[in-house]
Amino acid sequence: MSEKSIRVSVVGGTGYTGVELLRLLSRHPAVELSAVTSRARAGQAVSDLFSNLRGVIDLSFTEPDIAALGRSDAVFFATPNGTAMTMVRELLHSDVRVIDLAADFRLQDPQQWRQWYGIEHACPELLAEAVYGLPEVNRDAIRDARLVANPGCYPTAVQLGFLPMLEQGLVDSAHLIADAKSGVSGAGRKESVDKLFAEAADNLKAYGVPGHRHLPEIRQGLRHIAGHDVGLTFVPHLIPMIRGIHATLYAVVTDRGCDLQQIYQQRYENEPFVDVMEAGVHPETRSVRGNNLCRIAIHRPQGQDTVVVLAVIDNLVKGAAGQAVQNFNLMFGLDETTGLDHVALLP
Amino acid sequence: MSEKSIRVSVVGGTGYTGVELLRLLSRHPAVELSAVTSRARAGQAVSDLFSNLRGVIDLSFTEPDIAALGRSDAVFFATPNGTAMTMVRELLHSDVRVIDLAADFRLQDPQQWRQWYGIEHACPELLAEAVYGLPEVNRDAIRDARLVANPGCYPTAVQLGFLPMLEQGLVDSAHLIADAKSGVSGAGRKESVDKLFAEAADNLKAYGVPGHRHLPEIRQGLRHIAGHDVGLTFVPHLIPMIRGIHATLYAVVTDRGCDLQQIYQQRYENEPFVDVMEAGVHPETRSVRGNNLCRIAIHRPQGQDTVVVLAVIDNLVKGAAGQAVQNFNLMFGLDETTGLDHVALLP
Amino acid sequence: MSEKSIRVSVVGGTGYTGVELLRLLSRHPAVELSAVTSRARAGQAVSDLFSNLRGVIDLSFTEPDIAALGRSDAVFFATPNGTAMTMVRELLHSDVRVIDLAADFRLQDPQQWRQWYGIEHACPELLAEAVYGLPEVNRDAIRDARLVANPGCYPTAVQLGFLPMLEQGLVDSAHLIADAKSGVSGAGRKESVDKLFAEAADNLKAYGVPGHRHLPEIRQGLRHIAGHDVGLTFVPHLIPMIRGIHATLYAVVTDRGCDLQQIYQQRYENEPFVDVMEAGVHPETRSVRGNNLCRIAIHRPQGQDTVVVLAVIDNLVKGAAGQAVQNFNLMFGLDETTGLDHVALLP
Amino acid sequence: MSEKSIRVSVVGGTGYTGVELLRLLSRHPAVELSAVTSRARAGQAVSDLFSNLRGVIDLSFTEPDIAALGRSDAVFFATPNGTAMTMVRELLHSDVRVIDLAADFRLQDPQQWRQWYGIEHACPELLAEAVYGLPEVNRDAIRDARLVANPGCYPTAVQLGFLPMLEQGLVDSAHLIADAKSGVSGAGRKESVDKLFAEAADNLKAYGVPGHRHLPEIRQGLRHIAGHDVGLTFVPHLIPMIRGIHATLYAVVTDRGCDLQQIYQQRYENEPFVDVMEAGVHPETRSVRGNNLCRIAIHRPQGQDTVVVLAVIDNLVKGAAGQAVQNFNLMFGLDETTGLDHVALLP
Repeated sequence: MSEKSIRVSVVGGTGYTGVELLRLLSRHPAVELSAVTSRARAGQAVSDLFSNLRGVIDLSFTEPDIAALGRSDAVFFATPNGTAMTMVRELLHSDVRVIDLAADFRLQDPQQWRQWYGIEHACPELLAEAVYGLPEVNRDAIRDARLVANPGCYPTAVQLGFLPMLEQGLVDSAHLIADAKSGVSGAGRKESVDKLFAEAADNLKAYGVPGHRHLPEIRQGLRHIAGHDVGLTFVPHLIPMIRGIHATLYAVVTDRGCDLQQIYQQRYENEPFVDVMEAGVHPETRSVRGNNLCRIAIHRPQGQDTVVVLAVIDNLVKGAAGQAVQNFNLMFGLDETTGLDHVALLP
Repeated sequence: MSEKSIRVSVVGGTGYTGVELLRLLSRHPAVELSAVTSRARAGQAVSDLFSNLRGVIDLSFTEPDIAALGRSDAVFFATPNGTAMTMVRELLHSDVRVIDLAADFRLQDPQQWRQWYGIEHACPELLAEAVYGLPEVNRDAIRDARLVANPGCYPTAVQLGFLPMLEQGLVDSAHLIADAKSGVSGAGRKESVDKLFAEAADNLKAYGVPGHRHLPEIRQGLRHIAGHDVGLTFVPHLIPMIRGIHATLYAVVTDRGCDLQQIYQQRYENEPFVDVMEAGVHPETRSVRGNNLCRIAIHRPQGQDTVVVLAVIDNLVKGAAGQAVQNFNLMFGLDETTGLDHVALLP
Repeated sequence: MSEKSIRVSVVGGTGYTGVELLRLLSRHPAVELSAVTSRARAGQAVSDLFSNLRGVIDLSFTEPDIAALGRSDAVFFATPNGTAMTMVRELLHSDVRVIDLAADFRLQDPQQWRQWYGIEHACPELLAEAVYGLPEVNRDAIRDARLVANPGCYPTAVQLGFLPMLEQGLVDSAHLIADAKSGVSGAGRKESVDKLFAEAADNLKAYGVPGHRHLPEIRQGLRHIAGHDVGLTFVPHLIPMIRGIHATLYAVVTDRGCDLQQIYQQRYENEPFVDVMEAGVHPETRSVRGNNLCRIAIHRPQGQDTVVVLAVIDNLVKGAAGQAVQNFNLMFGLDETTGLDHVALLP
Repeated sequence: MSEKSIRVSVVGGTGYTGVELLRLLSRHPAVELSAVTSRARAGQAVSDLFSNLRGVIDLSFTEPDIAALGRSDAVFFATPNGTAMTMVRELLHSDVRVIDLAADFRLQDPQQWRQWYGIEHACPELLAEAVYGLPEVNRDAIRDARLVANPGCYPTAVQLGFLPMLEQGLVDSAHLIADAKSGVSGAGRKESVDKLFAEAADNLKAYGVPGHRHLPEIRQGLRHIAGHDVGLTFVPHLIPMIRGIHATLYAVVTDRGCDLQQIYQQRYENEPFVDVMEAGVHPETRSVRGNNLCRIAIHRPQGQDTVVVLAVIDNLVKGAAGQAVQNFNLMFGLDETTGLDHVALLP
């Protein structure tokens, strides 16, 4: 694959996953960025909206145009939920490969989609073909996929954290608990009172406890991993930080003698973006700020039968744009880590 | 009790619980503040150290002197762990009533004290007499106490959150989970790299998962409430905010038909500082910023058997100085809410 | 004046100055809160919108109704600019005394109002009667005023900081510089992308350098103080904090021998809410968080002829709701400090 | 210059400039990192101290050893002030090229060094040879330098902001004002109460107004630029953000007709790391978070004779480690931008 040979378009690049995707793609050695679309911003320079892209990306936003997008090799959707599903069918017909960072193709059951997202699915026939883009689970399928459903941020951290012990059936899977904490960027760039600095700073609250949209996605993923239904309580919290997810996972081990530390290390030994830390440490979200890693630590406090797994990611990278690029690399036969070697920004 | 008639001294007023205690006591209608001691700061004006007390408190720090303290009606200890236990015996001989905001008299078992705090207890004979200052559990004993052990911040939120369902035996008490989040002021005012702004801001991590000092205190309290041993996994997290604790508590109900909402409302109906919110809401820490309330909400996500209790307090008020004043009010026959009617500061 | 004898209404209590006013009025010993109005929120409990007022204020928002408001003794307007001017005339006819926290009556020249606020003034005939509510300048006029124009947040800090040296003509008033920094709450509670946590946190920018609406207000005030026109460069900055204004003021002294420290101390000696600090200190915004003080320090770096004045206030208290209550106290013959004795919340 | 062919050592890599330098050097294509020294941390893995370097840098800290360092091609000092000056003489004898990120060689006058830093200079004979590492001023000298004194963070922003108008003599240079705002990382990683999260968050204060160590450095630089002494008032402020400096500069133009916008654009036209923005905009610190740019905007508010220049940098990059790498690139004949093409992290 020669330099800058893959033509890439981004649909809907005005949110946080969009700007992060542009940050990553602008320095990706194999990517030629063809278009960044936005109906509302068409004609405006991308760097007018995002001051960090000034001098980096010279494009202006364009109207999303299927014909033009169809001349890309790959199209990323960084749109609100419900947009990609109205355009993907045609793009696939044009032999474009698609990575959707929204939720449109994450749930395999269109009924469930309607229940949690409140609208009818516009192309249910593609749900079976869409590959859930968690490389640690579906790497081979991703390589061949025409359409990848990039996982949600919470689902990425929670699934990677539970995966090894669920795969091996080591815990009571009927009472899993995921207490997750997210920075405010996870809620997107759309204006709203709740996300104002003066509301969210120096404050903390849980939200969506009765039922968050990521719950069915996580349950579906864990069921796939475990081979059977699981019981999960998922409680997300809004944290006064910009980026980062910290998932604190609880499960009761059924085999008290199992060596979870070793099991996790072996499972993730060859994963370029999962870092199993030494026993007893506490990963911090800033250790992955701006990069594509998921760092995990396993605890068995006081030697009891409850295991505590700590998993951190950057919600905008491994939880969104970085994982999308990782999937892109797989789909185009590139080294999986291409363009993803950022050192986390600390402090 | 006439105005300003109770002479009060504060030992060790140079930390965050100290300055918060001074904020509250300075406006308490029945308190005459006699002395604020600090070995390291003796001679310095209190308001030089704490800019918010400029024009409020005119005292200078003095050397702690047992004889002088002995002329107080009440002495608050806002000292590091291990200090109060070396001075309390003499103060009680002088008929002073003591409220210790540190951990010295919280654990009833001196062995456990040594195990978790690393030093021999200096006056184990007072451990049985000391009353654990959680008014919602021990109100009557507090009224008559000579020595009150003011609860820790995490223990206050976790115990109040679990209390009603443990009292009534409605949950599997062998697998309780307390996922707790605290603002950085909870770690105190002593300089350390971990608590620097550039380390703690825009970051999140768990800590003390293998075993935090508040674990035995919470377990002791829950055992007292439940009437038997409980199994508890306690995971505290450091959050980039100044004040506030959010405890997210998980338990599996054994009686799936019980009406927890009603049980909590009834249990706390007459409590001036516990606010049971409507079903389905998510309390936020800033709703109690600067005041003495604990706000609680109960959830049963998706109608499953796992109950989620959300409890928020200000770690420096209900979790420290405010609860100490509440105990003081009880000990001196004042209305329990005297000097504690602050409206939380929002935004 | 007996307890709770003054009937007060608040028009437009859904923003930050509104909630802060409600915090202060709810504990004011002479105030009976009659109504809090909001067209958009009519019928909703005030405490549903502001979690800190739960258990404090039992009112629901009502439609603003002139007749009902006319039965109040005092009406505070915490509305967007341009609202009060459409209602004040009728309220004054009903013998209500009015304090407007918005900008409607701050500028004496209706042309200037139109230029800076973009709309025609609805009752220019009241501009001459309205008293600019800076008690340190207009105390006597405020006592007798029917209509008080409560100053803006920046204007309060900047005018109090420049006042003594301008009154005495000690500086080159043609080249005054006010470099001002404000917490994000100063920009209000209306949703907007700029004020989102993920935009404003860990970030800093100037804004409105070509011309901010507070510029003509400050200039008018300084002209009044100096007795002649002044030249002022005013640069506001958005700071990632919730509350607080720090004004850093620069001027070149014309009389190099003058003792500014003494001049400031004398000028503000009897002011209950201006604290002139010792020479050489640096006031911090949190030292006034939640209270009505303006703290000021004067510097002459390196003994040169440029004087630097540092002035801090809480933008929502002395910069808005607190100063409004101070004005209210004066208007109703109460002690000026009534209901305003809060100790700043630190940390 | 072939890949990874320049052997580089870092002395004192345990602070924020150290970790940032390691972040940049670890991905620099021409650098082979030989050693990272720390007396206090010798033997400890670098990635144990800095979680972002886990998997990036495999070295452990070593004792600083002149002989070993002497085998490097280049040595960076990221040490406290006063350390480099005791080691540089010997390193230069070993033909090592040295870049000091501390202040040891910034002031040309050893008397001034003693006055502001409180210790006698250990090798005053090298002060004349040391090149002040501001490439926009001294590019050619830097190329040939054996010893580069890397500028301070405030001095970088302030000098770049004033440079074009001082060079051309367009302003009253006797009354320059630099109102500068810095994130907390600028104060270093050493523990101290002032920098604790609970002290610095939601707070703002000026500091060092009577005289900050960067004042003589800035004055010396501006004198060099202007060709004569200048009068400067410099007021730094501590801002609750991690990274970023915002310098707000004020000067009175003497030629009111000059086109400053054009003058700045021309002066910096070929500078890879200075971005002169369009007239009227307000640069934000996050637009350079993690990269080596200085963004500048020029204002003439209200058409008066006071010019306002806004300049932003990342204090740890263009204000420290990034500029050091820029200097390194110049010294070793590399493209000046090598290893410095980071896109700022936003949000």
